[in-house]
Amino acid sequence: MQAKQAKDTGSDEEAIRALVDKWLIASEKGDLPTMLNLVADDVIFMVPNKEPFGKEEFSRSYENTKGTRMKTESDIQEIKIIDEWAWMRNFLRVTFTDAKGESSKHSGYVLTILNKRPDGSWMIARDANLLTPEGSSL
Amino acid sequence: MQAKQAKDTGSDEEAIRALVDKWLIASEKGDLPTMLNLVADDVIFMVPNKEPFGKEEFSRSYENTKGTRMKTESDIQEIKIIDEWAWMRNFLRVTFTDAKGESSKHSGYVLTILNKRPDGSWMIARDANLLTPEGSSL
Repeated sequence: MQAKQAKDTGSDEEAIRALVDKWLIASEKGDLPTMLNLVADDVIFMVPNKEPFGKEEFSRSYENTKGTRMKTESDIQEIKIIDEWAWMRNFLRVTFTDAKGESSKHSGYVLTILNKRPDGSWMIARDANLLTPEGSSL
Repeated sequence: MQAKQAKDTGSDEEAIRALVDKWLIASEKGDLPTMLNLVADDVIFMVPNKEPFGKEEFSRSYENTKGTRMKTESDIQEIKIIDEWAWMRNFLRVTFTDAKGESSKHSGYVLTILNKRPDGSWMIARDANLLTPEGSSL
């Protein structure tokens, strides 16, 4: 069992990197169902200046951005696997372009907790997102 | 082994709650050595609008707040133990009072990754801190 776990760490890391790619592609395409498939039912998203929120509010606010295009660069800093759980630090830069063609950039780091499903796939369980508009200061 | 782990979860949770109390008391007293004892050597602190930073920069910026008094209320939302690792969500409200007696409040949520030492004590390994000045908006 121990040996198997050690051997699987590499493929778990690959599966988590694949999840991030899948998430970013879905978010750029406006494919909410795919995004919702990648999060736990009891997922909690944390962002500055807001109460933590779950799947429903995430869906609502994502739907509100319809008409805005999103392009995200991701630079994963580290992934740590612990059995069926993992945490990841990532750097994201998101370019939003609205219907008028005006764009703005948000960037920053994210700390994510992931959980492995019985089928071996991973899902996002908690996500602390520190992205702020570029050029802003708190 | 499984039974022992399950049995230990309660005391691990207590140990983590005790760490938070110890940290807050030390931060209010200006007791930097105690705070540094509660973090991993390779700790990474994440805050909005800043590159992630480690122990040295933490010490430097804490030393720069000398003269400012800090009082923190903490409301732990959840703790999840996974073997030698844990993650915790916490809500913090910090009141800073400067030398002139002027005060300001920062509040928000924190997602923390903790790691258990061989001696059974816990330390902070990663910390994503979403506190912002109260009344501000991004």
